[in-house]
Amino acid sequence: MRLGAIEAGGTKFVLAVGNEKGEIFEKISIPTRTPEETTKDALNFFKDKNLDALGIGCFGPLELNKDKEKYGYITSTPKPHWGDFDILGSLKKGLNIPVEIATDVSGAALGEITFGDYEKEHTLLYITVGTGIGGGYVIDGKIHNGMLHPEMGHIMIHKNPKDTYEGFCPYHKTCLEGLAAGPANEGRTGMKGIDIPEDHESFDFIAEYMAEALMSYILILSPTKIVLGGGVMGRTYMIPKIREVLKEKLNGYVKTDQMENLEEYIVTPSLGVESGIKGALALALMA
Amino acid sequence: MRLGAIEAGGTKFVLAVGNEKGEIFEKISIPTRTPEETTKDALNFFKDKNLDALGIGCFGPLELNKDKEKYGYITSTPKPHWGDFDILGSLKKGLNIPVEIATDVSGAALGEITFGDYEKEHTLLYITVGTGIGGGYVIDGKIHNGMLHPEMGHIMIHKNPKDTYEGFCPYHKTCLEGLAAGPANEGRTGMKGIDIPEDHESFDFIAEYMAEALMSYILILSPTKIVLGGGVMGRTYMIPKIREVLKEKLNGYVKTDQMENLEEYIVTPSLGVESGIKGALALALMA
Repeated sequence: MRLGAIEAGGTKFVLAVGNEKGEIFEKISIPTRTPEETTKDALNFFKDKNLDALGIGCFGPLELNKDKEKYGYITSTPKPHWGDFDILGSLKKGLNIPVEIATDVSGAALGEITFGDYEKEHTLLYITVGTGIGGGYVIDGKIHNGMLHPEMGHIMIHKNPKDTYEGFCPYHKTCLEGLAAGPANEGRTGMKGIDIPEDHESFDFIAEYMAEALMSYILILSPTKIVLGGGVMGRTYMIPKIREVLKEKLNGYVKTDQMENLEEYIVTPSLGVESGIKGALALALMA
Repeated sequence: MRLGAIEAGGTKFVLAVGNEKGEIFEKISIPTRTPEETTKDALNFFKDKNLDALGIGCFGPLELNKDKEKYGYITSTPKPHWGDFDILGSLKKGLNIPVEIATDVSGAALGEITFGDYEKEHTLLYITVGTGIGGGYVIDGKIHNGMLHPEMGHIMIHKNPKDTYEGFCPYHKTCLEGLAAGPANEGRTGMKGIDIPEDHESFDFIAEYMAEALMSYILILSPTKIVLGGGVMGRTYMIPKIREVLKEKLNGYVKTDQMENLEEYIVTPSLGVESGIKGALALALMA
């Protein structure tokens, strides 16, 4: 089976051709410009690939209710030109094959279950921390969406009194994303993310905020595995610190095998930086 | 089909006989004593009823992982005698029929989907506020459990600076349950719940705390319907106030039909005070 995959992000689109085993044969990256230019390039790349299906893991918010007229549209993004754009329809029409779409992070969660080390997990939560913070949840191999896809980055958490940063979320100011996503720490430190030293004290705030968020995710969803992706989470001491603070916060309340072994419960993506594009491949498989 | 139902609570057990339409033919209530005494009474009530199956909606925490040796046990409850008790096994052995068990609030959520007005909902969240706070979530007619059943009452929320009450949760002090469950408001006001006037200002705190919790539930689960049960939620102005504060907090971020119509989105149980026992009946139907 020949499957196409698109990891559609705000700054670049990753395009790949692979198969049902999660093997990738070819992969390119193109800059995100207007919807028309970007999808044209994508169609040009895919048109001679003889694909059976395509999967798209896309930045959001997306309309994912199949009963809605605008199913498969990017809806109210602040990104110029991309609001109210029918990304699913544009690609489906151009290629004339089955296409499946989900949020990028839901795709990544599905990728970890389908092609990663966690195929036996009943439920898997994937949280990514980058320009924004998002969460995807897979139950028995199926992405969970309710009235909308999850928007887990926007829950409120307690700001540390020592943290003077005011938060950047235009809707909620100091929600998790507003205090812990990449731009928050750039605002807090006055440095570009890449220049912030590994052991900068600001990361203690991030770890604390992520731990409180994980506490809520665990109490509400009770995932059997939690994967933390994105650049900030890859910093050496970040995940160990999150585990430590989480344990303090839960204070022994949740008694499960997983909580006894946080090193195996809260982990980095088994597909590494390919969890996004392989997630899109997993979506193609579902199409 | 003749179905038995148990709503197993900390102070009383409600026992009922009904059918697959959710009709109840007979119902009694017995005081909760030791596990042995209470289950003996329950078995005596059910033994001549010619049942096809039994459903139990039970206080928790419960072991609900079928792969575990202690599946169907009440686990680490602080309630004397009831910790580590095999409630499922005791009843199954005594009656020799299929028995299904879930938390009381998951049962109530299932009851609303199965016998209530919300059968068409893709996902339904049921939150109950009483002696404690619990949540149950049903997806496509099936109760969601992960590594454990949800423990939604224990998420952290922001305490209002004017609220001088210190919180009663032995694990997290000022989590949602610690600040908004029945005992919290009794501690806050120095009055018994039943004596607190309908318009007491303390209920503004409760509404605010519940609204912040609902914000998290919505962003994480994205339920298509939210049902709020329990005595405190039944107070006349409580749910309207919660809707109002929730709307302020979300600040237009979640754009769905449901959010445009909170009167139909956040509602009281359609089964009224029978959502618990009819939930247990719905569990029997699944057995």
